[in-house]
Parts: sequence; structure tokens; C-alpha cells
Amino acid sequence: MSCVRCAPIAAVLVGAVFVVAPAGAQGQETLAERLGYAADAKLLIVHADDIGLARSVNIASARAFEGGGITSGSVIVPSPWFPDFAAYYREHQPLDVGIHITLTAEWEYFKWGGVSPAGEIPSLLDENGHFYPTVEAVAQHAVPAEVEKEVRAQIERARALGIRPTHLDTHMGTMLFIPALVPTYLKLGKEYDLPLLIPRLWLENVPAEFRDAVAAEHIVVDGVYMMNAEDTTRTWSEAYAELIATMGPGLNELIVHLAVDDTEMQGITVNHPDFGSAWRQRDLDFVTAPEFRDLLMVHDIKLVSWGQVRDAMASGYGDSQ
Amino acid sequence: MSCVRCAPIAAVLVGAVFVVAPAGAQGQETLAERLGYAADAKLLIVHADDIGLARSVNIASARAFEGGGITSGSVIVPSPWFPDFAAYYREHQPLDVGIHITLTAEWEYFKWGGVSPAGEIPSLLDENGHFYPTVEAVAQHAVPAEVEKEVRAQIERARALGIRPTHLDTHMGTMLFIPALVPTYLKLGKEYDLPLLIPRLWLENVPAEFRDAVAAEHIVVDGVYMMNAEDTTRTWSEAYAELIATMGPGLNELIVHLAVDDTEMQGITVNHPDFGSAWRQRDLDFVTAPEFRDLLMVHDIKLVSWGQVRDAMASGYGDSQ
Repeated sequence: MSCVRCAPIAAVLVGAVFVVAPAGAQGQETLAERLGYAADAKLLIVHADDIGLARSVNIASARAFEGGGITSGSVIVPSPWFPDFAAYYREHQPLDVGIHITLTAEWEYFKWGGVSPAGEIPSLLDENGHFYPTVEAVAQHAVPAEVEKEVRAQIERARALGIRPTHLDTHMGTMLFIPALVPTYLKLGKEYDLPLLIPRLWLENVPAEFRDAVAAEHIVVDGVYMMNAEDTTRTWSEAYAELIATMGPGLNELIVHLAVDDTEMQGITVNHPDFGSAWRQRDLDFVTAPEFRDLLMVHDIKLVSWGQVRDAMASGYGDSQ
Repeated sequence: MSCVRCAPIAAVLVGAVFVVAPAGAQGQETLAERLGYAADAKLLIVHADDIGLARSVNIASARAFEGGGITSGSVIVPSPWFPDFAAYYREHQPLDVGIHITLTAEWEYFKWGGVSPAGEIPSLLDENGHFYPTVEAVAQHAVPAEVEKEVRAQIERARALGIRPTHLDTHMGTMLFIPALVPTYLKLGKEYDLPLLIPRLWLENVPAEFRDAVAAEHIVVDGVYMMNAEDTTRTWSEAYAELIATMGPGLNELIVHLAVDDTEMQGITVNHPDFGSAWRQRDLDFVTAPEFRDLLMVHDIKLVSWGQVRDAMASGYGDSQ
């Protein structure tokens, strides 16, 4: 296994070198100022991905929300365990939850298809009616109009079950890393009036025709981080501690993958130690430990949520305004 | 909760009074004889229902197969956890596994739809693309041709994942208790050359036009038993001990519902103590306990499997031949 840890997500996914970006354009009020902090404050969304994937994940995410270990999370609507989390959400709202737009079903045995009827999204489904397992396969087959239909269906299903989403992001980076789907991602964010996860590094690497439109209308996330491969040279906590100690100013997001390491989660993540069951338990242990809060305090990192980003956006703040 | 326990399934489901039926017509070789036992031997299939429902159920069922606590089981093919069990099956075959024909999704939050594309089985699906939760709703909506299509798809999906089914039975009794579906059940059993779960009490209550055709071609199960409601007056073991002590001659089936009582299973069976997570753990504890084997020995009950029934049927044995 590779020894890359806590590298920026965009660097991992597109192979670029990460550069710490400025928190805002010169002379412009930063998001931090808008939220009442110093212009160069270090803001951090601690974000639980894949909520709804498993009962184990739902329990872990609820525990982290209740203990303050995360500020936001996003849900996999097509997963069989999404309705279970939606029931929890309805009893515990408001919770800061977005839609983790999902077009893949990457686990070996635990599969799902779309929220839309299969006949309406044939380009997204394999011969068993499940999503394809990889972003590459989605890129090869997906018809953007069917993606738009399915993403709308996921948002509407979540709303029907009582979720009031604070943001949209994208499972395995699918909507960001398939160029043909980027317009759909931007369009739906605008239409639903929701902020999108847009990493600055990603923005610096997209064709120019997108860049200006995106920068004008969105709050870009300066640093997006997550564990991305096992590393035996440091403990889990040491790796996160280093990340937190070196985090830059502006808006940051730490993506964590939470689960209880139990037989269900071991079954879902079989043959996949990266992002596996024990891995996710380590993330849960870290975000719920007092040590994590202490590190944030020592390094003067301000926890924020996607709901705050949405509200700042709604009041007229855009990255280049 | 009702205090009925271990009542015959048909009595519970159709409200009839259970009558111990003879093991075979007079002068006819009984199944027991065909299997090398005395004509009036007490044969018992110990059958795990709902395999594939959950990771918890798969683990419990595997444990029971490996410990000899069950002789047969059947799988819910449309459930998200069916492929996980199929992988176990491929590594541990031969296992005596049939298809638990499933047209309902009865749990509050954990749902599934059909194996067939939704557009091909609209009469079986609710507005979210899931099966209806009750047999009554299936009876109200189901078009038999769509049922036939879906049942075939379940059998073929199981075969595609390596299962060689030994029999067919029917989740929540759907194919038996909706008269319009009985011909499909009989037709598919014949076409796939597989025995069907047909309780004698059910057979005695169906219209005469079915009865003769069924009796001519099928081995009927004389007594079908399962726990059907909580009872606080006896322990779980006491209730089963009474059943075993009073079991009649002929072919019997004890249907058990196995699971590990864990957070996953608690989540699936939320708001449903009957057939709930603790309930299923009690069934698992009972069938894997030495006490169960001792009771069978004391009462001279011979364990048999659906595979043996299939082989007897294939060699020309029918209930009225």
C-alpha cells in the first residue's frame, strides 16, 4: 500500500501537486470575516462522508454528530441504509447534512442501483441494475441527461424523507472528475441554491471556461483533506495531528469516513482495507477523542459547517465578488 | 402480543385448526421408507428462512449450517445482502439452499425492489420502487404475469451467482396465500424440477381443482412449524421442546429465523419485536445448542434436507403415486 496520507484530495485524485491557496482574492472580504473571524482565520468543516452506506456508518455518524466530532456530513441516498439515517435525522434535526451525489456502487457484494426507475437511467447501470463500481466506468457509459435525472431524484428522495440539505458533494469525486458531468453539478447547485464542494486545486486545473463561472458563484474550499491510504510509519492520530498543525488559512474540509468496525461493515468492505471497516473505526475514534478538540484549539482552527457556508452564499458572498 | 407459539404455520396464516396428517396414503411407500427409515418415522427439515436479509443473518445461517443446527435454508435474492451469502455459498458448497421467493419488503426502513427492471414489474412496486410491505398489498396489486417474470428473475439471479437451488418456498407465504399466484408457484416448481414447500394443511384448504394436481406431483410437508409470536409463559427452549416431543410422523419442517442480535439487525427489525433481532438470536441459540440435538435423539426424529426430498421426487416419488 502507498504511504501517502492526509494528502489533499485533489492531489490524490488528479495527481497534481497541492498548493496552499489564499483564503480570498486581495481586497475582498473573506468568508472568515463574513463569519466573524479574522480575515486569515483557519476555518474547518469536519465532514463525514458516506452516511447511509450501512447501519454501522449511521450509528457512527450519529455518535460523531452528537459528540461534536463532525460539523457536517452527506448522505448516499440510493444506499439501502439511507432511510434508517433519514429517520434519525427527522428525530434530531437540525443536522448539517448534504447530498453525497452517488453514481457508483463500489463494494464487492453490497450493491445498489439508482433512485430513478432503471429504464430511465440505462447508461448508469450494469447488467444487474447496479451502478458501475468505478468512476472510469461511469465516465465511459454515463449520458449526462440521465445523470441529471438521477441526481434530481436523489435530492428529491432525500427531501421527501425530511432532509433539508445544506450542500451537495460527490461520492468518489464523480461529478468533479468526469468533465462532461461538471455542468450538471454546477447547474443543480444553482437550481437548488446549495453550495457545492469545489476544491480550489480542482478549480485551478479545470478548463478556463468553467473557472470564471464557478469562481463568480461559489465559495471554493481552499484545502480538502482525507486519509487516502494506509501508512504503517505513523499512528492515525500522528498523521491527523500533522495535518492540523500545517493547515492553512481559509476554508478547509477534512473528509472522514466513519463506521463502527463490526461484522456488517467488515462484510461491506471485504477485500478492501483502504476505506475498510477498521480504517473507518479509526476515523471515528479520532474525531470523537478529546485529543482532536485539543489540537483544533492549540492551532486556533475554527469549526464551521456547510450550513454557515450556505448562509454566507445566500447573503451575497461569492469567491470573486 | 399473542401467546401462540410453535403453532403450525398454515394454522397461523389461514386461521384453520391444525390436524396431524398421515405420513402417506394407505398402502403407499412413504417418503421415510424411500429414505431408508421406518414407514412412520418422524422426518424433520430444520429450515433457516430469510438468508441474505442481512449480514447478521448470513453469519448466523453460516454458523448454523457449519454446526449442523439446520439442514436447509432459503435465500431472499432481492435483498442487498444476498450476494454476500452467495459468495459464502460458493466457498462452502454443497449447501442445501433454496429460493425464498420474495415479493414483499416488510421492514420499516430497510427496503428492496425486484430483481427485474422496475419498468417490467410495475404491479409489484410502490411509488419508491420498493416491494409492498404486506401480502395483502401484493394481493391487491400484483399481476400474475409480472410475478412469474420476477420469480424467474430471482431464480436466474441466484443461479448466476452460483446457487444450485434444492427447492422453492415463499417469503411470508405470498405464493401460497394469494390464490391467483398458486398456479405460478406450481408451474415454476415443475419447470425448474424443484420441490415446493406445500404444507398439508394448506393443501386441505385449497379449492379441489388444485388439490389433485398438487398431490399427484409433489411431496407435501405434513407439519410446518415456526415460532410466530412472543410468549412470556415459557422459555424459548421449553416451547421448542414441547413441539419436538409432540411432532408427528411424516415429513415435518421447522422454520427458524436466524440472526446475530447486533446493531445491524436491530436497525432492520426496528419497531418489530416479533421476528426481531433478539427473537432471531434466540432461534440461533436454540438450533446451535446441544440440547436441540439431544431432544431430536430422544424423540427419534430424523433430520432430512430438501435435497433429499428433491432426489426422492426425481426418482418418481409423488405424494399420491
